[in-house]
Amino acid sequence: MSKRLVVIGMDEPALNAAQSYLKECPDAEVTVLYPELNPLPEFICGTVERYLQNGMTFPEDLRASGVDRDSKQVLTRDVASGAESAITYDALIIATGSAPEDLNIPGDHLGGIVRVGSFDDAKRLRAIEGKTVIVGGGSSLLLTVSSLMRHKTGTVEVIIPANSEYDAPLSDNLMGMVHHHLTTKGIVLHKDQKLVDISQCENGIKIRTTEKEIVADRIINATPSQPITHIFSSAGLSMSRNGGLVVDSRLRTSDPHIYACGSCATFTSPFCDIPIPGITIRASEPRQSCTLAANLIGNPRQFTTPTGAYSIILDKFTVAGAGLTLNEAKKCGFTPMSATVVQFDRAHFMHGVELMTLELVFDAPTRRVLGIQGLAKSGQALCGRISAVSAILSRKPKIEDISNLEIAYSPPFASAMDVLNTAANVADNMLEGINEGIDAIEFKELWKERECGEHFFIDCRELGNARPFVEKHPTHWNHIPQGQIARRLAEIPEDKKIILICNTGARSYEAQVVLKHAGFKSVVNVDGGMAAVRQSGIEI
Amino acid sequence: MSKRLVVIGMDEPALNAAQSYLKECPDAEVTVLYPELNPLPEFICGTVERYLQNGMTFPEDLRASGVDRDSKQVLTRDVASGAESAITYDALIIATGSAPEDLNIPGDHLGGIVRVGSFDDAKRLRAIEGKTVIVGGGSSLLLTVSSLMRHKTGTVEVIIPANSEYDAPLSDNLMGMVHHHLTTKGIVLHKDQKLVDISQCENGIKIRTTEKEIVADRIINATPSQPITHIFSSAGLSMSRNGGLVVDSRLRTSDPHIYACGSCATFTSPFCDIPIPGITIRASEPRQSCTLAANLIGNPRQFTTPTGAYSIILDKFTVAGAGLTLNEAKKCGFTPMSATVVQFDRAHFMHGVELMTLELVFDAPTRRVLGIQGLAKSGQALCGRISAVSAILSRKPKIEDISNLEIAYSPPFASAMDVLNTAANVADNMLEGINEGIDAIEFKELWKERECGEHFFIDCRELGNARPFVEKHPTHWNHIPQGQIARRLAEIPEDKKIILICNTGARSYEAQVVLKHAGFKSVVNVDGGMAAVRQSGIEI
Repeated sequence: MSKRLVVIGMDEPALNAAQSYLKECPDAEVTVLYPELNPLPEFICGTVERYLQNGMTFPEDLRASGVDRDSKQVLTRDVASGAESAITYDALIIATGSAPEDLNIPGDHLGGIVRVGSFDDAKRLRAIEGKTVIVGGGSSLLLTVSSLMRHKTGTVEVIIPANSEYDAPLSDNLMGMVHHHLTTKGIVLHKDQKLVDISQCENGIKIRTTEKEIVADRIINATPSQPITHIFSSAGLSMSRNGGLVVDSRLRTSDPHIYACGSCATFTSPFCDIPIPGITIRASEPRQSCTLAANLIGNPRQFTTPTGAYSIILDKFTVAGAGLTLNEAKKCGFTPMSATVVQFDRAHFMHGVELMTLELVFDAPTRRVLGIQGLAKSGQALCGRISAVSAILSRKPKIEDISNLEIAYSPPFASAMDVLNTAANVADNMLEGINEGIDAIEFKELWKERECGEHFFIDCRELGNARPFVEKHPTHWNHIPQGQIARRLAEIPEDKKIILICNTGARSYEAQVVLKHAGFKSVVNVDGGMAAVRQSGIEI
Repeated sequence: MSKRLVVIGMDEPALNAAQSYLKECPDAEVTVLYPELNPLPEFICGTVERYLQNGMTFPEDLRASGVDRDSKQVLTRDVASGAESAITYDALIIATGSAPEDLNIPGDHLGGIVRVGSFDDAKRLRAIEGKTVIVGGGSSLLLTVSSLMRHKTGTVEVIIPANSEYDAPLSDNLMGMVHHHLTTKGIVLHKDQKLVDISQCENGIKIRTTEKEIVADRIINATPSQPITHIFSSAGLSMSRNGGLVVDSRLRTSDPHIYACGSCATFTSPFCDIPIPGITIRASEPRQSCTLAANLIGNPRQFTTPTGAYSIILDKFTVAGAGLTLNEAKKCGFTPMSATVVQFDRAHFMHGVELMTLELVFDAPTRRVLGIQGLAKSGQALCGRISAVSAILSRKPKIEDISNLEIAYSPPFASAMDVLNTAANVADNMLEGINEGIDAIEFKELWKERECGEHFFIDCRELGNARPFVEKHPTHWNHIPQGQIARRLAEIPEDKKIILICNTGARSYEAQVVLKHAGFKSVVNVDGGMAAVRQSGIEI
């Protein structure tokens, strides 16, 4: 049993684990150090005081500068005197966290630039007035916007650099819906811009891109965070490409006396050999803490490799997911497809019923389910579906497992054939070749080309729904209700690409089955139907 | 591919599957028959009309009276003429449903007795005025009460016969909380009564038990339902003890040409060899329908053996569960234990935060998780947890899998250490011997015996919470806040049974760890703390 525990960094799983360890082994010595070169964030004092009460030592002037694994010592430097010394450990926990990198353009060190890279950073954003520009994309952006939406009193513009989507938590299709939602909330988006420079100006701080100049009161750097692990670079510990300390299921690094946790660590994926950065699984930190505490007292408890389940609230709209997105699955070497459905979140006759959008990602050759993402107004209902898939994801479920997954049904909480089951059924139909779906973005492209003479659009809804579109586009917007398709085949050209659309995709799929039976070769239907088109902000 | 499909009974999975089958094979003949001896329920006409439009035949005067498997014929009788004939099938689906048995007391056939045995029956209850007596226990009772609570304008009394708990969806502990909730809603409960007889009287209908006489406008028979399968008793199909037709994962009975589904069928459990009656898994019927339809057209789709996930709303209070209860697990031959926790359903600082109670059932020797049940005000939040466990339950999860299960976290939807993870951690601590919990009912018994001199009760909360109890019971209600336990050991007698209680069980567990470290031998803490005690309606 270890007696001298050293913690480098302040990430909560380490401090909580150290606290539990002290409870079990009251005579242990626990020392907490902050790593060299990183500014001591203001919020730390409060955090540390809480832990100091419980018997830990925090030598305020000492900074960790490296590790000597042979002698099991943490190398330290005194910030006042510059004197170097060392602290011996029996067990070491590295919990140095992560931060966004500099924006890497001239002026990126000016005052007025706020770094936000994590859930906790985002939570720290408080009532911001005036004008804010956020630079970033993907989940870091969403976390920041989420936080601002709750507290902001000012205006927000967002610059999404061309290459910043690499931590995107959603497919382009769903991300398009989220972006549309943000614009309806008054947030201005500037997509695919290249940053040029930042400068101070009379009215605040000015950021220039290849296409715009924006003056604001502050700039938030919401680009993805990177692990803070430079002081360990010469220690010979196994690291991932982005500098995360690779840990096993007991949270041990490649040195069994050294643990890592939180956002400086990199975990193994249940899906493939591609590692999961700790920053993406902040929600699992309390469980990391339990795993660490158990292992410190000699109980070899394992941390189930995480699925990265998350949820983010954007005003009255929630985004959530678990596992891989379509793009991530491709990067992992799968041959993925995804089934997108828009369906009611509870029985259609219930008060408060709302649409939920789910995208189920699966590997086509093996039918293995790899991930799920979604959007909904009822965040609690959405999280229930995401958590259910998250629970089973590391067990390598097949599409059938999701088709048959039993949601705790009653009409106020689910449909009898739940949206989650439907998503899997659509996936099944896709693989059987009886459902060829396109997403809202693909539909938009086809609709743009409507004059080309090669497409034939059919609205399969009843007249009430279809009329405004038929009246607006009498040449291109054809209307045949799904129930009439079988007896009106003569109206449909056999040599064109048939594009079927309805409210949410259910009737257009039925129509597709009929047309395929009748021998039509090129027929697609729009996944999520007009609901998806509307949510993506596409004007017809 | 079958051409002649016969369906006996009206349970929806069969009719829906037949409809899908007709869509795929438009030249098939589908005949739907009602079984002999069962009265034709009024609601059937509407249902059947819907299906008749889609090409099925429903010979109104014919009743199925049996099956001749050798000649693949359903035997029929004409209700008008009494003439017997037969209909040949290539495939047969039995979907005859289930109903509560008679109450088996004199007068049980009088007018004014309504039979309610299923979700659908319960949904059919409409604005009932006057006074209703419900006879039953377990889930059938809850479904009925649930439905009445939404529509009733009259008063409700419930008689729970002594032996009627065999379909109880919750442990005695949680059921106690539900019963208390019902009484707070003005429903009068008469427990453990033996029924004597029913008679008409001037003011309505009178039911007598060994202890009471109640006059009401109607009596609802909400005893558990039994499969309606008597006409197949001589057909040699494999049946479960309660008369359900045993089906395999493709929903085939022991005759591969005969399928069964819905509440007349019996499924195999993922947990053991004990069969699951179809009535308990009504929510899986749409998925049964898909499985049937696929198999009819020759695709050997499997129905994942169900976990029986359900949810029932009782006014502003939801009960939900999946898998086995503590009692069911015992009956299945396990050596089960359960961990009960009461914890916030989201981060403690969020608006709308409420307590959630979860009971995790596991097999002690193998650490295998067998089921989960719970109660909460936020039904959607509760269903999310139940569905997550439901998703993984048939994969034989261990306690560790639930400790590490990743809920889609954000503060409005979950705690960072979610209530579900806590339940598993408590289970883990129980097995490690460092958490010895008692439930609210056991606490009530110990408190009743407080004068015996062998118990020592300690309230581990801060003074504000503890004061009213200390003032009311100065001799028996001792108060030592959890943070002070370690330095006030001298106040605690070593020769008594120490009973620790706090708000929800977290601090009393911490106190228990301290006392065990200090060498106290007999220490228990109350799972769910005062929250559980209050929810159970126990007065201190």
